[in-house]
Amino acid sequence: MVLARHEMGEVLRDVRLRRGDTLRQVAGRASVALGYLSEIERGQKEASSEILASVAEALDTPLSQIYHEVGDRIAGHERAAMRERRFAGVIPDTVPDELVASVGPVDAVSG
Amino acid sequence: MVLARHEMGEVLRDVRLRRGDTLRQVAGRASVALGYLSEIERGQKEASSEILASVAEALDTPLSQIYHEVGDRIAGHERAAMRERRFAGVIPDTVPDELVASVGPVDAVSG
Repeated sequence: MVLARHEMGEVLRDVRLRRGDTLRQVAGRASVALGYLSEIERGQKEASSEILASVAEALDTPLSQIYHEVGDRIAGHERAAMRERRFAGVIPDTVPDELVASVGPVDAVSG
Repeated sequence: MVLARHEMGEVLRDVRLRRGDTLRQVAGRASVALGYLSEIERGQKEASSEILASVAEALDTPLSQIYHEVGDRIAGHERAAMRERRFAGVIPDTVPDELVASVGPVDAVSG
């Protein structure tokens, strides 16, 4: 199961590092505790919508861009899971990707 | 401030209605309490990553698509806020949109 908070954490960390900011700088500007921001980046805590908005602003990055990047990362995991299912021979190559994407994990299909 | 949970709720509701599903059907398939799913759709509760994954699966919709749709909706709000700022005459039209997007709300600019 892809957990959105893991991808959100990676995206927030990527954006911060691309800007060359430290955790401390972003936490300060966003008025979020440093330890809490660190847990969000590591995907250990869900960020509330209010905190996400503050962190996005502290990163000078539109929240929409952050959501799109999270969507892109999740899509990468979904494609990888699809390839795995095909590789396991559960679904023949003649079945279109859209249909493969809509079914559950391998054990749900073969069980 | 755009709150992501409001947009997430709207997207989940839109996807459900496009499929012609009832709240009860989706809540049942996702093993989520009906009242809780309803609060998520109304943007009153943050959905945890685990619940989001279950609801996406119950809607036969890739989680990546849901995140992209949320990003699109947030982008719409960001563009509207940008137009408002321009309309208020705070920022002249010669300033590129990217720069306008990176500044704070009107009161932060004029204050």
